[in-house]
Amino acid sequence: MAIRNRVWEIANSFGLENLRIKDRVVPENIGPNEVLVRLTATSLNYRDYLMAIGQYNPRQKLPLVPCSDGAGVVESVGSNVKKWKTGDRVIPIFAQSWQDGTPNVDSLRSTLGGPNDGCLMEYGVFDAQGLVRTPDHLTDAEAATLGCAGLTAYNAVVTFGGIEPGSTVLTLGTGGVSLFALQFAKMLGAKVIVTSSSDEKLARAKKLGADEGINYSTRSNWERDVRKYTDMKGADLIIEVGGAGTLPKSMMAVRPYGTIALIGVLAGGESNLSLYPILMQGVKVQGVIVGSKADFERMNSAISQNKMKPVVDRSFGWDEVPDAFAYLRSGQHFGKVVIEWQG
Amino acid sequence: MAIRNRVWEIANSFGLENLRIKDRVVPENIGPNEVLVRLTATSLNYRDYLMAIGQYNPRQKLPLVPCSDGAGVVESVGSNVKKWKTGDRVIPIFAQSWQDGTPNVDSLRSTLGGPNDGCLMEYGVFDAQGLVRTPDHLTDAEAATLGCAGLTAYNAVVTFGGIEPGSTVLTLGTGGVSLFALQFAKMLGAKVIVTSSSDEKLARAKKLGADEGINYSTRSNWERDVRKYTDMKGADLIIEVGGAGTLPKSMMAVRPYGTIALIGVLAGGESNLSLYPILMQGVKVQGVIVGSKADFERMNSAISQNKMKPVVDRSFGWDEVPDAFAYLRSGQHFGKVVIEWQG
Amino acid sequence: MAIRNRVWEIANSFGLENLRIKDRVVPENIGPNEVLVRLTATSLNYRDYLMAIGQYNPRQKLPLVPCSDGAGVVESVGSNVKKWKTGDRVIPIFAQSWQDGTPNVDSLRSTLGGPNDGCLMEYGVFDAQGLVRTPDHLTDAEAATLGCAGLTAYNAVVTFGGIEPGSTVLTLGTGGVSLFALQFAKMLGAKVIVTSSSDEKLARAKKLGADEGINYSTRSNWERDVRKYTDMKGADLIIEVGGAGTLPKSMMAVRPYGTIALIGVLAGGESNLSLYPILMQGVKVQGVIVGSKADFERMNSAISQNKMKPVVDRSFGWDEVPDAFAYLRSGQHFGKVVIEWQG
Amino acid sequence: MAIRNRVWEIANSFGLENLRIKDRVVPENIGPNEVLVRLTATSLNYRDYLMAIGQYNPRQKLPLVPCSDGAGVVESVGSNVKKWKTGDRVIPIFAQSWQDGTPNVDSLRSTLGGPNDGCLMEYGVFDAQGLVRTPDHLTDAEAATLGCAGLTAYNAVVTFGGIEPGSTVLTLGTGGVSLFALQFAKMLGAKVIVTSSSDEKLARAKKLGADEGINYSTRSNWERDVRKYTDMKGADLIIEVGGAGTLPKSMMAVRPYGTIALIGVLAGGESNLSLYPILMQGVKVQGVIVGSKADFERMNSAISQNKMKPVVDRSFGWDEVPDAFAYLRSGQHFGKVVIEWQG
Repeated sequence: MAIRNRVWEIANSFGLENLRIKDRVVPENIGPNEVLVRLTATSLNYRDYLMAIGQYNPRQKLPLVPCSDGAGVVESVGSNVKKWKTGDRVIPIFAQSWQDGTPNVDSLRSTLGGPNDGCLMEYGVFDAQGLVRTPDHLTDAEAATLGCAGLTAYNAVVTFGGIEPGSTVLTLGTGGVSLFALQFAKMLGAKVIVTSSSDEKLARAKKLGADEGINYSTRSNWERDVRKYTDMKGADLIIEVGGAGTLPKSMMAVRPYGTIALIGVLAGGESNLSLYPILMQGVKVQGVIVGSKADFERMNSAISQNKMKPVVDRSFGWDEVPDAFAYLRSGQHFGKVVIEWQG
Repeated sequence: MAIRNRVWEIANSFGLENLRIKDRVVPENIGPNEVLVRLTATSLNYRDYLMAIGQYNPRQKLPLVPCSDGAGVVESVGSNVKKWKTGDRVIPIFAQSWQDGTPNVDSLRSTLGGPNDGCLMEYGVFDAQGLVRTPDHLTDAEAATLGCAGLTAYNAVVTFGGIEPGSTVLTLGTGGVSLFALQFAKMLGAKVIVTSSSDEKLARAKKLGADEGINYSTRSNWERDVRKYTDMKGADLIIEVGGAGTLPKSMMAVRPYGTIALIGVLAGGESNLSLYPILMQGVKVQGVIVGSKADFERMNSAISQNKMKPVVDRSFGWDEVPDAFAYLRSGQHFGKVVIEWQG
Repeated sequence: MAIRNRVWEIANSFGLENLRIKDRVVPENIGPNEVLVRLTATSLNYRDYLMAIGQYNPRQKLPLVPCSDGAGVVESVGSNVKKWKTGDRVIPIFAQSWQDGTPNVDSLRSTLGGPNDGCLMEYGVFDAQGLVRTPDHLTDAEAATLGCAGLTAYNAVVTFGGIEPGSTVLTLGTGGVSLFALQFAKMLGAKVIVTSSSDEKLARAKKLGADEGINYSTRSNWERDVRKYTDMKGADLIIEVGGAGTLPKSMMAVRPYGTIALIGVLAGGESNLSLYPILMQGVKVQGVIVGSKADFERMNSAISQNKMKPVVDRSFGWDEVPDAFAYLRSGQHFGKVVIEWQG
Repeated sequence: MAIRNRVWEIANSFGLENLRIKDRVVPENIGPNEVLVRLTATSLNYRDYLMAIGQYNPRQKLPLVPCSDGAGVVESVGSNVKKWKTGDRVIPIFAQSWQDGTPNVDSLRSTLGGPNDGCLMEYGVFDAQGLVRTPDHLTDAEAATLGCAGLTAYNAVVTFGGIEPGSTVLTLGTGGVSLFALQFAKMLGAKVIVTSSSDEKLARAKKLGADEGINYSTRSNWERDVRKYTDMKGADLIIEVGGAGTLPKSMMAVRPYGTIALIGVLAGGESNLSLYPILMQGVKVQGVIVGSKADFERMNSAISQNKMKPVVDRSFGWDEVPDAFAYLRSGQHFGKVVIEWQG
């Protein structure tokens, strides 16, 4: 007898107004290498919002269950699965087939929340290789923030950042990725400078460990402040979430042969950009696409050892999904916006 | 009694028409840590041309002796100098005070051929730390090609390229940096793909070891050819000398998490660029600014061991300096344009 | 009806005299993720010899099909296998479950030729993940040299060697690993110094590209020759196959902060060793245990691109297996000893 | 008129009983690139003790001012010195001519406290390149612990350790290097396991951040405890100060392809060692010889940013030098033994 599996879908056409709850069925027979997971939480990324309104990939097929991130509990496992058992707490990985090393075209197409269905559903079936273990000290809601924003920040800081204790990291803004980057940079003994348009958010960032805060609404030449805070040398690493709108200033704020981790394009993805600063300063602009399962496991090891807690700004319930998306869009959040439910 | 030291200067104002020979004097007393070098050759870089016509740095003070590159013979040494002796064959380094590691603002201002006088002169005085030894198997004209184009290509390929035997390197065009990059990539056991608008130049590149050649004047979607030559994976490293004009295609030709070494902007330095490919493919765009003395010595060790010969396209005499610049500007060259004289 | 599968076994007890041919049966039903391979060649490693005489692991269960290395052709594939098809030329990997990254205890126990059956048999069943593709330009006999000796040398030189064009690599002797190391080091543009007790072998090594040869039977202080050949600096990398017998001299021959890749213990595995040279010179002694499948694929890419040919000293037939082992034991070989047959 | 410069010397022959105070003279004219420093503190390393009793280098010329470590204040500078001015707080570097990169034979002979005079004197003359700036938050006594023990631990953990947040580091004992390693490993977000023969010292190590403590006097198979504390994987990095006496157990406690940083040989430098574990586990044994000036500056940046305080066990006065050495020899200390005076 089929068990009901409620899901949120972007139904027939894009737009937050087209988000709706549908009934599907929990698969009774899963493959020998598969795992059935009762999901209990997700978190929202800007990618999820762009996907929902059709701006991320206009050719995305609908209906689509949105949300790349998730967390839950193993309900049952296929006949060959040895790694997992009923009751294990797990997190699905963003790119289901990206196990290790650099990705290829195929692994970049195996992502949840588009092109494949995401985690905003009561039950999901995943390959046994497509899950990682939830750190013990985290709630499911906290765990559901790690898959995209956490792993992106981890790789930007730890894997590609080239930093060490005493380095200086600049994070732009106080969204999910930026705050994770702040936390990982502090975990590594670095100095962290944060920008925001809100003094109140800067104060909260300092409570999380930020060494310096710059209000860019009142300090329009914030790149000069960064240089001042680094003995005029420039930052070793910049977590660039703004894109074309902030990149020119980031290029002035980074040290020669420093790194700009390009993670988002909130302030624009296309623009009349000058390449001269890259040339003249030997800047490295490194795009970061989340990460592999091996990266996720290294990150979880770091999080568990340091008892790091993701910053959850606000939690919504199953019935408040459209509100949650609207809240994300408003940009008011400090850290992650999550949705929690009982599977 | 003062000894005449003839130099070429960009005299009162910028422009190739303002290049002229002037008489200066060989310093009689050099500092205790200095070395007097009788220069005998230089090579031209596009930077030298831009500097001469005032487009590299309009605020450059004149007169300026142009040309960053040079080679020559030690004439005499200061009282403290132990490393050099009369008769030693030497090459001045581009950034005179950049000894090792990453540069700072000061070392980036210590460059020859602007802001400081360059090597188009009979005698030059250099700090003992500002010279490297000429590889034995090279003529001075060949040695004079190494300082900028050679070292830039070396660092782009060997230091920042992240490649290993079996990797694929794409070089754009057949100018000095591109051919050096081809040679260093082959020295490392990589596969090399070259683009050019001339089938004849592609044939010459293959004689130097290139594995594949693409005529971009007839293959306008050359990025697809690159993917085809790499089993659809994309190149591991692209030596990008075109800048804004070719970067969009380079971003399509590189593999996920591959490297684009940004070295020149022959095809434009500013443009309406999209950042999405960097984000979506995890591309690393790495600006390269020549290199340090330690890098130069590593390169010379590689060149000596492998008896590598720089590609000299054409050599001009002391009286033909304006012709040499005009020839460089024409873009006809395959490899380096040099000027040779007796000091 | 069962098809005969002839194998060589170390039967009831250790010793070359206990090597014998047995009839087994080709499995009719292979698992969904498995591949049936018709094997055609193997090569002998010193490990295979030690295993056969019971010195590698006295607790190894018998009977055991010896020989970690092999090459062959896919005969059939399981229902889930997409990567391979009948007729594909393949090489089984040494540690069948070591896919990527560093190994763990389990993957180190998944090795062929002990504890698991090896490749000296007509047909073998392997996990689809336990194979790599044979480089096109190699015969099966050549391909069968890569799995242990080739991959060990590759990782010692390319992955752990920390070398670059112009570096100096010292290889001890002219066995399989040492000659592979010579070839990979030359592929990377390094200078190679080889030692041997035979001038004739040194001459052959030079034909393979070695820059210098030292006959250690007449030059007992060969570490001094190494320093002389490196401007008194010491070698950047030493491929140490001798173990305790040669390590003290290797420590004198390596540069400060250079690398000694410890690969074998032909000259003894235990000894009264002094640790002071490691301390005083900042030496890195790096043990190398063959490598992962990802390493193997990187190596094959390097081999294919550079059309590298393994050095096969001598090939034996199916009926000459004991002779082949005896020949290996004699130490007369220059490069690899292989065994070829028709499956 | 000559100013008195009191120094401690190992006078005519080795032995703590031959330590005595002598009067020298403060040089009136220092070279143009030199700096006169009024020294105020030193710390003792085991190397200093071995040097004093003639076991480190029996051919060391006497008299010798012992002690590599020091800290003080700039008294005056030579005519060319721009980097330093009177009143600057400075630390002399161990190998005076080792500025950056890997050392060579010459830089390894430029060390203080043997073969050259050390810091147990009121005034010392150093090359301007042979000093680093004292971190503001440290006293001179604290600063005087950094040059050898601090920098050795820093390089072992940060430069060579290959660790990241979540890695596991094992430190043997609670001497100066081990406690610095503990502090740097925690600064990097790693898990730290400490061994000691004293429960009281283990308790103090835990207060410094150690996650686990093992009393090796009651847990003779401490390598098994290490495996247990690492989910049976083994430690990623071991700070090996014991040498031959503890290395066999360290090889059992490290993970495959993990690192053993060989720093000291307190428990013996020579022994009947087996090389098999290095081979079979792919262990890296990395000797560490303090470090360069560039390393020191990176370390100071890390220390300053994280307001790290060296652990000073006990401070002795100028007249108590023999007592201080005897105390070090006794092995009772937890952290560093320092000597302080007014210059």
